Amino acid sequence: MVPGVKVMSMVDITKKPIVYREAVAEGVIRLRKETVERIRNNRVEKGDVLTVSKIAAINAVKNTPYLIPLCHNIPITHVIVDFSYIDDERIKAIVKVRTTAKTGVEMEALVGVAMALLNIWDMVKKYEKDEKGQYPFTAIEYIRVISKVKQEYK
Amino acid sequence: MVPGVKVMSMVDITKKPIVYREAVAEGVIRLRKETVERIRNNRVEKGDVLTVSKIAAINAVKNTPYLIPLCHNIPITHVIVDFSYIDDERIKAIVKVRTTAKTGVEMEALVGVAMALLNIWDMVKKYEKDEKGQYPFTAIEYIRVISKVKQEYK
Amino acid sequence: MVPGVKVMSMVDITKKPIVYREAVAEGVIRLRKETVERIRNNRVEKGDVLTVSKIAAINAVKNTPYLIPLCHNIPITHVIVDFSYIDDERIKAIVKVRTTAKTGVEMEALVGVAMALLNIWDMVKKYEKDEKGQYPFTAIEYIRVISKVKQEYK
Amino acid sequence: MVPGVKVMSMVDITKKPIVYREAVAEGVIRLRKETVERIRNNRVEKGDVLTVSKIAAINAVKNTPYLIPLCHNIPITHVIVDFSYIDDERIKAIVKVRTTAKTGVEMEALVGVAMALLNIWDMVKKYEKDEKGQYPFTAIEYIRVISKVKQEYK
Amino acid sequence: MVPGVKVMSMVDITKKPIVYREAVAEGVIRLRKETVERIRNNRVEKGDVLTVSKIAAINAVKNTPYLIPLCHNIPITHVIVDFSYIDDERIKAIVKVRTTAKTGVEMEALVGVAMALLNIWDMVKKYEKDEKGQYPFTAIEYIRVISKVKQEYK
Amino acid sequence: MVPGVKVMSMVDITKKPIVYREAVAEGVIRLRKETVERIRNNRVEKGDVLTVSKIAAINAVKNTPYLIPLCHNIPITHVIVDFSYIDDERIKAIVKVRTTAKTGVEMEALVGVAMALLNIWDMVKKYEKDEKGQYPFTAIEYIRVISKVKQEYK
Repeated sequence: MVPGVKVMSMVDITKKPIVYREAVAEGVIRLRKETVERIRNNRVEKGDVLTVSKIAAINAVKNTPYLIPLCHNIPITHVIVDFSYIDDERIKAIVKVRTTAKTGVEMEALVGVAMALLNIWDMVKKYEKDEKGQYPFTAIEYIRVISKVKQEYK
Repeated sequence: MVPGVKVMSMVDITKKPIVYREAVAEGVIRLRKETVERIRNNRVEKGDVLTVSKIAAINAVKNTPYLIPLCHNIPITHVIVDFSYIDDERIKAIVKVRTTAKTGVEMEALVGVAMALLNIWDMVKKYEKDEKGQYPFTAIEYIRVISKVKQEYK
Repeated sequence: MVPGVKVMSMVDITKKPIVYREAVAEGVIRLRKETVERIRNNRVEKGDVLTVSKIAAINAVKNTPYLIPLCHNIPITHVIVDFSYIDDERIKAIVKVRTTAKTGVEMEALVGVAMALLNIWDMVKKYEKDEKGQYPFTAIEYIRVISKVKQEYK
Repeated sequence: MVPGVKVMSMVDITKKPIVYREAVAEGVIRLRKETVERIRNNRVEKGDVLTVSKIAAINAVKNTPYLIPLCHNIPITHVIVDFSYIDDERIKAIVKVRTTAKTGVEMEALVGVAMALLNIWDMVKKYEKDEKGQYPFTAIEYIRVISKVKQEYK
Repeated sequence: MVPGVKVMSMVDITKKPIVYREAVAEGVIRLRKETVERIRNNRVEKGDVLTVSKIAAINAVKNTPYLIPLCHNIPITHVIVDFSYIDDERIKAIVKVRTTAKTGVEMEALVGVAMALLNIWDMVKKYEKDEKGQYPFTAIEYIRVISKVKQEYK
Repeated sequence: MVPGVKVMSMVDITKKPIVYREAVAEGVIRLRKETVERIRNNRVEKGDVLTVSKIAAINAVKNTPYLIPLCHNIPITHVIVDFSYIDDERIKAIVKVRTTAKTGVEMEALVGVAMALLNIWDMVKKYEKDEKGQYPFTAIEYIRVISKVKQEYK
């Protein structure tokens, strides 16, 4: 044991029971009005923004243990991704994840939301950049966990 | 909820029982006679084609949830890959996958077959190309599911 | 050196020039008429089949060196995926890949086509299975390279 | 070509010149005072939060093309990650990415920031959850691009 | 069946019971005295060597089925990584892995140890190379399994 | 900037020239005589050990930047893997890697050797374990860099 060096571990969940787990996370991206309008009307040159973002979110959920170093790899049994228009400059992403496992899935839901919003950004870069190639307007405004559920597995 | 935008989900299998699952898929690649002869005699410069293709198939089976966006990530309990020579221009790949899980494994078997055949192609490119660098002869002729089994887990 | 054991290598392309490369591959999947109709009308419960399949293809193109063991990892500069309806039972996928690199990209295009077609299969499993859970009709009918281009980089 | 179905592509950058690229992104996570105090004093049970988060960010930067479907895979030549304490409830992450490539790296910087902040969250979950297992306080407050640079490669 | 070509399989563990599994592996790297001194005092320019190496080990454990072709993908329930200084030229890495699964985890522990040691190497390359850029001193001295446990799952 | 927290970076190689790079690494695994005999005669139940190990090595080389956190992702232009029998209890693996890039490839060669040896272990576990399921004999004996070359690119 090295003095002063803390042991690091992926927390021991070996003896925890396999129970039903659910987590819902959400986040908001702010874009130019013209860009939100383009997304609404499916006139973004790179393709159908919200469909691709849903796929990006589902893929990210499954990859969470390879992105968050101390996350456990568990079989995910459900992911659902949805979007809503908050106002004419904001789109909200919601990701719900379910599993029956020894540990929770809020990190999976959060990673899914982050990647959904970042993929929107990627697909509309062209409309968001100013003449100097900067992004004075675009921002992910927040990401948070809405709810977490844990109950005996039925 | 965005009007006109369908929710997308990785189907909810949370409450499905864990049962025994098996799927077998097969596919055929057509090559030049000289190439099939080389594979038979293990005279392909890049190495032992069928052994490498088996490894490519097993690797692909395990990576299926990262390739097929809506596939669930599940622990695979068995993969077996085999080849047979249909005639002097055709090689067939067969992949069987087993698991005890909440969802089936036919996509895993199909992805395994596809990658087995594509790896054969990769290792014999040199013998298949014509003088213009084209592939007038080479083709994956078909890929399909042979059988799917689902039964109570014993 | 082990007698009888061939050395294996990822071919040495170190001294090859960086030139413009392009490859186009295509493939066809056969489905039930009702399923093709559903895809046409975007009435597949799992979501927008062709958009998701395009994403699956682009993702697969980038992952080719991790799927085909002897493929080189190279920066891909362009991928385009398209579909067409051959007849009322067949959908064709076409993938074009471009790069400026020391080696060609036909394997990338082929892997993209395979995964585009397999993802269609995954999203319509429900409509293709018979009452015994088998797939008597569904098949990838062929996958092949349409053209390969290599020319000095401008 | 399928009527009504837009072609999807990873944008063609084949002919673009290889130039110097840099992007800087930042983001802020809000935590409980006690948690920020723990991070400052390196008393988080799971380990050294900021060091692990830096690694998570660098790993995420390299994985961006496998997370954002239409991103190009390019060799990254530099990533630097830093943190600062905004106030007693907020930590800011800054990620700078450099490359010499045919396309920019702002998505890489943004994905790095998102994963740095999400990894902080993962490592302090225990201190952030209330008695019902919810996160009433924790939030990623924003993520944005600070600057983007593109200039002839020297 | 191809004469002379052995079938290859990821061993069939479908019917094996899910039991408690644990494996511990260790390995030693030899470095220059000055380098070990730097690691001890956290004066390595690239950062905190042992913390990063622990993360590298945990990440490698989770990626084992994608590195060792015939390894099964299973949910890992615990990984712990530790280091000790054997003498002034040697650092030992120890990795313990736990799961409740149908197969053992010694390969996961071994892969974790290998990557912990190799990451140490990566972070101190600068101090280990001689004036010709060679590594006359640096070596991984051994890697082995210390213990393997398998018992009924409680 | 957080006092006492070192900035972490993937070293900046942006301005380094693209030159020819080569690295050769080697390592040795010690096995029971009976096991080495089985490998020699290709009588290992799991398949052709050395061919699969070569594939594992090549795959690992390409995955090095995703395993070693601070490694740069670069296009690899050549990998060659070879084995030799040192004596009746020892097999040596040699991996040579080449590229034309801004940074060296010794980590890639080392990771390749480690994974080649670990895959041998995986495929002969059955013959190496004693009656208690332990490995009293098996060991990776060493891994080191044989040579590193860097010269102007021709």
